[in-house]
Amino acid sequence: MTSAAHPPSILTIAGSDPSGGAGIQADLKTFTSLSAYGLSVITALTSQNTVAVKGVHTVPPEFVAQQIQDVISDIPPAALKTGMLASAEIILSITTALQSLYSSPTSSLALPPLVIDPVTISTSGHTLLPESAVAALINHLIPLGTVITPNIWETELLLRRGAAVESGKEERKVTNVTEMMAAAKELAQLGCKGVLVKGGHLPLKLEAVREGLANAGGKGGEEVEIVWPKDDGVSILKLASGLTEEEHLDLNYVVDVLYEAEKGRFTAIVGKVIETSSTHGTGCTLSAAMAVFLGRGLNLRDATVEATRYVHNAIATSYPLGAGNGPLNHLHTITYRPLPTPTPADSLPFCTHIINEVKKTGLWEAYIHHPFVVELGKGTLDRRRFEHYIKQDWHYLRHYARAHSLAAFKTTDFDQIVGFSEISLHIARESQMHYCETFGISKEDLLATPETPSTSAYALYILDVGQRGDLLDLLLAVASCCLGYGEVGMKLAEGYKKGEVKMEGNLYKKWIEDYSGPEYLVAVTNSIKNLEKRLAAAPPSAQRLQELVKIWEECTRLEIGFWNGAMDLELEDLPEAAMKA
Amino acid sequence: MTSAAHPPSILTIAGSDPSGGAGIQADLKTFTSLSAYGLSVITALTSQNTVAVKGVHTVPPEFVAQQIQDVISDIPPAALKTGMLASAEIILSITTALQSLYSSPTSSLALPPLVIDPVTISTSGHTLLPESAVAALINHLIPLGTVITPNIWETELLLRRGAAVESGKEERKVTNVTEMMAAAKELAQLGCKGVLVKGGHLPLKLEAVREGLANAGGKGGEEVEIVWPKDDGVSILKLASGLTEEEHLDLNYVVDVLYEAEKGRFTAIVGKVIETSSTHGTGCTLSAAMAVFLGRGLNLRDATVEATRYVHNAIATSYPLGAGNGPLNHLHTITYRPLPTPTPADSLPFCTHIINEVKKTGLWEAYIHHPFVVELGKGTLDRRRFEHYIKQDWHYLRHYARAHSLAAFKTTDFDQIVGFSEISLHIARESQMHYCETFGISKEDLLATPETPSTSAYALYILDVGQRGDLLDLLLAVASCCLGYGEVGMKLAEGYKKGEVKMEGNLYKKWIEDYSGPEYLVAVTNSIKNLEKRLAAAPPSAQRLQELVKIWEECTRLEIGFWNGAMDLELEDLPEAAMKA
Repeated sequence: MTSAAHPPSILTIAGSDPSGGAGIQADLKTFTSLSAYGLSVITALTSQNTVAVKGVHTVPPEFVAQQIQDVISDIPPAALKTGMLASAEIILSITTALQSLYSSPTSSLALPPLVIDPVTISTSGHTLLPESAVAALINHLIPLGTVITPNIWETELLLRRGAAVESGKEERKVTNVTEMMAAAKELAQLGCKGVLVKGGHLPLKLEAVREGLANAGGKGGEEVEIVWPKDDGVSILKLASGLTEEEHLDLNYVVDVLYEAEKGRFTAIVGKVIETSSTHGTGCTLSAAMAVFLGRGLNLRDATVEATRYVHNAIATSYPLGAGNGPLNHLHTITYRPLPTPTPADSLPFCTHIINEVKKTGLWEAYIHHPFVVELGKGTLDRRRFEHYIKQDWHYLRHYARAHSLAAFKTTDFDQIVGFSEISLHIARESQMHYCETFGISKEDLLATPETPSTSAYALYILDVGQRGDLLDLLLAVASCCLGYGEVGMKLAEGYKKGEVKMEGNLYKKWIEDYSGPEYLVAVTNSIKNLEKRLAAAPPSAQRLQELVKIWEECTRLEIGFWNGAMDLELEDLPEAAMKA
Repeated sequence: MTSAAHPPSILTIAGSDPSGGAGIQADLKTFTSLSAYGLSVITALTSQNTVAVKGVHTVPPEFVAQQIQDVISDIPPAALKTGMLASAEIILSITTALQSLYSSPTSSLALPPLVIDPVTISTSGHTLLPESAVAALINHLIPLGTVITPNIWETELLLRRGAAVESGKEERKVTNVTEMMAAAKELAQLGCKGVLVKGGHLPLKLEAVREGLANAGGKGGEEVEIVWPKDDGVSILKLASGLTEEEHLDLNYVVDVLYEAEKGRFTAIVGKVIETSSTHGTGCTLSAAMAVFLGRGLNLRDATVEATRYVHNAIATSYPLGAGNGPLNHLHTITYRPLPTPTPADSLPFCTHIINEVKKTGLWEAYIHHPFVVELGKGTLDRRRFEHYIKQDWHYLRHYARAHSLAAFKTTDFDQIVGFSEISLHIARESQMHYCETFGISKEDLLATPETPSTSAYALYILDVGQRGDLLDLLLAVASCCLGYGEVGMKLAEGYKKGEVKMEGNLYKKWIEDYSGPEYLVAVTNSIKNLEKRLAAAPPSAQRLQELVKIWEECTRLEIGFWNGAMDLELEDLPEAAMKA
């Protein structure tokens, strides 16, 4: 569903429902919610809402044909569906247009999967295809179809009209699963590959479903597969869902019966009835979803099962809207991405987001332009403050190295174990020792210096996040210091160009060069890209993103606290030794 | 965006583009991708594709009015937008319908925010509103608007036509930011609250943007806010994005200028130009997104900034489609939910999913109907195998208690610390000791029994997952044994009803009663619900869900291995002591 390949384009040829629950509107919402690109040729406008169809404005047949021609010639769809077709003339204009695009001597294209929803009457009872046009549907369109998807009423209507094909048949009623299966097989004689008889208007108790399926199974030697609801057979799930076995038996079920003519195979898809009035556009939605799944390359059986589940959940998650039969919730399959998709113009959306979030609190500026850094840049920072910082940083880096070893522990991937261990080694071997040398701080001085609370608070927070969270939590916590120093380094380098930062004769020149130098900035860039890669591969939920922002904010606060430790130092309390070095 | 409240309903009144990139199709895709419910009144059908508009079929004005009446009276929208309006008559029918719904003596409704996209010419150059109808737009519709959103051409056209309002004006050209700002302020005199002059057709270098904004700022004493791209001001992000400062200066930028008449405030939104031909429907999409954000209650400035970002990313993530100017990628804000939303009919989608996934491998059935369990149910299980199991289970439960203590360590929430600690205590204090008593296994026997590899493999896997993963990983790993035993217990109880399981005189009756008893099953149900709650609050990405399935599968495999340990036992190797007990 979320593959990197472009989504399939799916075309609906149907009417318009301005209230958005049925017609091309339902189709487009379904296509979008199933990550497909929607195309839509309009056959008729209705003026309707959830209560009634108040008017119909039919589109000239030649304009329907022109839309089909213009759309398909430019963007060939991977699958098609038809819905409300309004008149025999429109049906003929559609079949003619499709045949000229797909079956003419000049065309090398094969007709893609075509789902025909034989819409005749709206849920609210309005006639959307006159009975006089049903013959055109049967004679011209249905033979092109991959599958037709009649509900019970439409099945009865088609059986009646299909009687013209085989003479001598009486009006037929479909009242149980056995009759649905017989009807599906009979309608396949109209020439389409598959028939899905939808049982939505025929709620049944579990016993009746089982009995009907048992009666019908194997009658003509056909294979019968029964697809039960997903929790079927798992007792503990039924128990945890809060219904007793007796209550389960007392539920109403619906059965949709698919017959595939070539395979001689029935598939009966069983679902629990959902008590709701939100059923406006159910048929449109099902056929649209089937077209998407067929367009993705699923076979008819799998596409039907998936589409049925999509519709089932769209009904189950619906909410009241309008005064009549409200719409389904087409959007139940999608979640809003709290983090934008990376693009060339915005390739680092995660780091951009967390920095902007922390900017709102004022903490980011307080970190990047901390008095410690500002004075360091001007060369006016008291040497004793820097020495305090270097000693505490030595403690911090011990934990920081451990944090990377913890990252190596938390992955199961050899390359990552190597990567994190190398960082840990690098920190443990080299870090800050050259400053100690310059400032005359010995190993003994370092060992004799106690770790201050602000150092412990920051370093141990990183380790705690790393132990209680996952690898991403840990990597984010270690990134705060890494990114922040990169930003500070770059800002100091920019300040130097503007004359705000002093380099010549600055006691801290080496520090500025280190953190604005190419080696360090490449490491920071890698850290940023690594985070972005992880977030792009597994987009976070809103709640997860908020947790990550909180970690970033806390690290920023602790980083400020760490520098405060140096700036809050009472200089008169410092031992003389530090001054002598 | 993903709040529990129902999404706002948003209405578009516009033309239809069958190729799906513009018109009500673009609007509906935008509404859906921004989690709103879409309503759409159609004013005209076009037959077009990415190359050209080939034909227009205008809808009778009274049918446009009827659609507006039928839709709004049933589902009142939180915001509206207008697009292609086709004729002066249609404009009048719309304003009359809106006034009768919102401003008539019998209506208590206030007109919601209205975004007017003054569409006159398509991207491909086709006239969508005759110049003769522009007067109707200016005189009747624009005074009702919250904001109009002309591009540069439309701005020039409206300035020209607006000249009728103030006499003596010449044709005007808009060629830079300063002129855009002047034009926006001037067009506000047409009577709408805001004017957004879109600069998409006017790419500028950064210097020209800065200069233009500086020149215009404060001319009439207005406040001017500049909204830069989000990475602005963070040097390390610019570096990591791979562009040098010089390359950043050399990019093309676009500026959209919003003028809010009442506040006397300009907002200039600056974005990087994206080099692409996928721009079909950009204006439709922007005005649709603005309507959504206004419908959600954002003020005009914020709605415009958010909508601009939405469009920007829709262009940036677009992919080639069709032979001309392809559509935007409206879907960039959404991801497909790999796990269904919980519903009353499917309240446990996560546990249902992971069990079904593991069913596919055959492991679930091998676990639930393991020979150890089957023989135990029949009472035929060799007592020495059960004693082996009990001793190893004692070892396992030590680690299982530790796993819950680890869970208590991994949370920072007091209630959860209490909950996990209580479970740990319960396991450590009580578990399996009554079986030891019954089967005559002493504490010394237990301590003298070494932990077998299959016990260590399972128990230490749980602890390893818990240490390297997050709390959810750990809770899932401990749930496998908990749920599985519940399912086994229930299946044995069901088997007893069918006469397949023996209770009377079964040496293992107590074990069956324990794991099918209400106390244990309530604990299992709580564990299931707790998992579902966590997953519903933070829907997992496809990758994350796959990781969770892998943990579940591995636990199932290890659980089978644990029982294999008892069944693979060479009975002749067992010390006599075990038999004597």
